[in-house]
Amino acid sequence: MNSEHNAPRMSGLATDLYQLTMAAGYHANKRHERASFEMFVRRLPPNRSYLVAAGLEQALSFLNTVSFSAGEIDYLRGLPVFAHVAPEFFEYLSRFRFSGEVWAMPEGTVAFPGEPLLRVTAPLIEAQIVETFLLSTINFQTLIATKAARIVEAAEGRGVIEFGARRCHGFDAAIYAARAAFIGGCIGTSNVEAGYRFGLPVYGTAGHSWTLAFEKEMDAFRAYHKVFPESTTLLLDTYDTLQAARLATEFGLQLRGVRLDSGDIGALAKQVRAILDEAGMKETRILASNDLDEFKIADLLAAKAPVDLFGVGTELSTSRDAPALGGVYKLVEVEFPDRIEPKMKLSREKATYPHRKQVWRESDSAGNFSRDVIAMADETGQPGEALLKCVMRNGVLTESLPSLEQTQQHSKHQLARLPQQFKRISDAETFPVRFSDELFRRRTELMSQLEGK
Amino acid sequence: MNSEHNAPRMSGLATDLYQLTMAAGYHANKRHERASFEMFVRRLPPNRSYLVAAGLEQALSFLNTVSFSAGEIDYLRGLPVFAHVAPEFFEYLSRFRFSGEVWAMPEGTVAFPGEPLLRVTAPLIEAQIVETFLLSTINFQTLIATKAARIVEAAEGRGVIEFGARRCHGFDAAIYAARAAFIGGCIGTSNVEAGYRFGLPVYGTAGHSWTLAFEKEMDAFRAYHKVFPESTTLLLDTYDTLQAARLATEFGLQLRGVRLDSGDIGALAKQVRAILDEAGMKETRILASNDLDEFKIADLLAAKAPVDLFGVGTELSTSRDAPALGGVYKLVEVEFPDRIEPKMKLSREKATYPHRKQVWRESDSAGNFSRDVIAMADETGQPGEALLKCVMRNGVLTESLPSLEQTQQHSKHQLARLPQQFKRISDAETFPVRFSDELFRRRTELMSQLEGK
Repeated sequence: MNSEHNAPRMSGLATDLYQLTMAAGYHANKRHERASFEMFVRRLPPNRSYLVAAGLEQALSFLNTVSFSAGEIDYLRGLPVFAHVAPEFFEYLSRFRFSGEVWAMPEGTVAFPGEPLLRVTAPLIEAQIVETFLLSTINFQTLIATKAARIVEAAEGRGVIEFGARRCHGFDAAIYAARAAFIGGCIGTSNVEAGYRFGLPVYGTAGHSWTLAFEKEMDAFRAYHKVFPESTTLLLDTYDTLQAARLATEFGLQLRGVRLDSGDIGALAKQVRAILDEAGMKETRILASNDLDEFKIADLLAAKAPVDLFGVGTELSTSRDAPALGGVYKLVEVEFPDRIEPKMKLSREKATYPHRKQVWRESDSAGNFSRDVIAMADETGQPGEALLKCVMRNGVLTESLPSLEQTQQHSKHQLARLPQQFKRISDAETFPVRFSDELFRRRTELMSQLEGK
Repeated sequence: MNSEHNAPRMSGLATDLYQLTMAAGYHANKRHERASFEMFVRRLPPNRSYLVAAGLEQALSFLNTVSFSAGEIDYLRGLPVFAHVAPEFFEYLSRFRFSGEVWAMPEGTVAFPGEPLLRVTAPLIEAQIVETFLLSTINFQTLIATKAARIVEAAEGRGVIEFGARRCHGFDAAIYAARAAFIGGCIGTSNVEAGYRFGLPVYGTAGHSWTLAFEKEMDAFRAYHKVFPESTTLLLDTYDTLQAARLATEFGLQLRGVRLDSGDIGALAKQVRAILDEAGMKETRILASNDLDEFKIADLLAAKAPVDLFGVGTELSTSRDAPALGGVYKLVEVEFPDRIEPKMKLSREKATYPHRKQVWRESDSAGNFSRDVIAMADETGQPGEALLKCVMRNGVLTESLPSLEQTQQHSKHQLARLPQQFKRISDAETFPVRFSDELFRRRTELMSQLEGK
């Protein structure tokens, strides 16, 4: 990873206005109690049967460096909405640092709806201001890591490369999509800046423009191969794919690969494979691209298309079939000097569970995940493994974070332990997750108290 | 706009690997001819009948500042794929600047498939390296500006506020989504950093956590109103919406607004409006949110729901029903010393049109758009208005860009001139766009030449 890009100061303005007005309100009302908020996903997006948690490193980097510059504070002071807010609040912001505690599932952990991916315990104002950034970061990377895991599952061991930068939601989204795709199991990305920042393997072929820039297709192929004798993958579909495949045989075993990017990929892959094999080029790999997703890849492999590598763009990098993860961040406890008050929202379809929680994952004797229990954080005697770890205390990381390679390994191990029926790309079963009896009881109790008010 | 954020150096690594390998190939083959590439969208995403061009300012800012640092060049040099590339290429990169010419539709212009949104003419290598960033920026902002325009159309004059930061593809995506939404007609955003950077109006209410942090809902309402006496919008749905509306009447005319964020918004808006009106609070506005999109807003207004403002998040800020715009960037001409060669790709479903182009828009006597003609750039005698303007020459802006307010005005005027049948949110007709006879003839000619080869 390149240090040039590590931890620039993040701005406290990276939030929704209401977080800052609530912060001013808490400040004016001297509400400096510590509060706990949990981030979780209410429902899985369509087609998904699990999540792969991702984005924690960027979330923690934000918490570690968030502050307000003098210019940013002047800007806030000048907004009409803050006209009646006392100057002490802006002085407070000038000293603002995140000082809280964070528990989270390590990146690459398989997760399910209702389970906290992250819990923040901090003075109310701090915990409130950071909400928007944490959600945008973890929602997005978890969305892409999850989509990547599905596509990698469909590719049955063949390499999947993230190719989507040009269709991402801006180039920064592209950089983090590449990162999250790697966590979800992709072997690398076409995105060079993501490669540079995160040490990801980078891949590429040549574009149609290269072929077009030469008078004859063969001139273009020869010119490219001369510069990249060991790593040329020729793009075959600028004019006529099969004719181009026959041209490609001139390079013999020196040709690393060919790429198919339009037409009937399944049929073309078989014809191109036959042309290459006949020329003794059994080692030359076929890379397929062109709006692929997990379903098209599964269909290609079911039809025995001889594709060795998949380049997946838009569908992966924007999670096109389900482009938003609805993670929310909800207040669960407030710590007063004399008591801890559990908190929950009653509004019907959005009601929440109070209390700080822990997720316990049980496995069978073979190590396969069998069920999760969401319990109170301090409930003892739960079987299984606790998924939330303390990753930050007093605003400081408790230990250094794993490398991306370690995180990818963790994700692979997690997915390997999730039984097939819960992870197949279509018609997967719902993994059993329940709330502990104690948590359920306490929630019912609180609910009737609140409805009584 | 805040100058602190203007034009940091952009990295040339913000691209796909194949752009850099092609660049090395062009360099090794001494291919320094100027080439023209055009960006266009092949097909409209589902439900869309037009595009609102956006993202040009960030694209030009990238072109203006893109370069490679020594550390970035060392990184490239160390990649196995570049093992056989001569050192002169890396020396070239150390001096790399964009020196080309750019023609583009101003942001806020209404556009259609096949029409170039942007044309780059530059030495082959420069034009190639910048492709990925230009596409990711313009695809994304155009996607969001277009979605915003549809939602604003549905809101029939009521204000629409961009609320989606937490569901965006990372926080940078959120910042540019807010910008693009404003171009598409939103009155502002909840995103404070976008407000700071671009001078956008910022809006906010209070969150459920505010209400939960107090023992009684009324305590929470009073505490908030005390700090924001002139700008309080109370969130009503933490416990029971109608009960909360009755509490809200205590504030009388001092209450700016109330917000509904769950349940049957249409029915609740009528009930809440009745409660407020009965208390003489006819000026207190109702803001609705909760997974709104253009169709839900149209339904609410058709049912005469008394909603004054819409806060729209996920559906707008990720363009959830169509989260990717498939803009492409294609080589159309190469300038050799003795001739200009038109270029096109033949691959069946992805064939392109050669030659540099201009788009001419014709209007009827009332000023309403009637049809577009895509012609060769130098074709004279076309009626109508030329949509592509020269915005950069020799890598330098030809004139300063419009303000975002001016761009929003331009977009409003453009949309006002697009007749209703081409812009209604459902079952819109296809706006007539054709290629000029001359362009069509030249393409057919080139196509038979290429197929003859």
